[in-house]
Amino acid sequence: MNEPINLESKFNKFSDYWAPKVIAQMNDYQFKLVKIKGEFVSHKHDDTDEVFIVIEGNMSIKLSDKTVHLSDGQMIVISKGEQHQPFAEEECKILLIEPNETINSGDDPIESNENIFTSPNNYWI
Amino acid sequence: MNEPINLESKFNKFSDYWAPKVIAQMNDYQFKLVKIKGEFVSHKHDDTDEVFIVIEGNMSIKLSDKTVHLSDGQMIVISKGEQHQPFAEEECKILLIEPNETINSGDDPIESNENIFTSPNNYWI
Repeated sequence: MNEPINLESKFNKFSDYWAPKVIAQMNDYQFKLVKIKGEFVSHKHDDTDEVFIVIEGNMSIKLSDKTVHLSDGQMIVISKGEQHQPFAEEECKILLIEPNETINSGDDPIESNENIFTSPNNYWI
Repeated sequence: MNEPINLESKFNKFSDYWAPKVIAQMNDYQFKLVKIKGEFVSHKHDDTDEVFIVIEGNMSIKLSDKTVHLSDGQMIVISKGEQHQPFAEEECKILLIEPNETINSGDDPIESNENIFTSPNNYWI
């Protein structure tokens, strides 16, 4: 806390996709960097909204009724309970903001824990 | 919610300094854009951490024991109760993240309400 955090330096510390890394905490919320490429599993978070801020690249998110496209300098709030499926043709770098305990692949244990997309929480870099 | 928000387009909607504008809400937290130039009042938030993300430009923050410098692509979490005084020689564009009810000039009503730096909350653009 109270120290500058350089996003690019933090992004340089990892290369795996769909595996959020924590870089900061504000109260009980965490700031996580993630690199994405390809298509993630469709999922939802029943108890919380979630914010995506695109730092570099382009991504899309399939929602229940539409698909939205985001590029650097754009953000979106995915409302709680909203089914969403992020995807990106090329590597895209994202800053996520969500409560500490949020599981990246969603709330459904059958869906999330059995797939390769579920990452451990509280992985700090 | 569930719609892309373009930070640059939102920054183009205002030109005043030290007056945060809300662009998004996630649960009971708000995302606010602010343009700064010059020196703000020293203040603190006793009940919450606060995040600054520099989108464009350079800024500094005087803390109780040091001064930190931030430029675009850097963020900082100011811990609750930490006295801080932001300043910038040239215009700097910032994304703030903090709980809805946070007063920009801090918790001390004597200090905050009598100075020109206190901005109304919930001013959406």
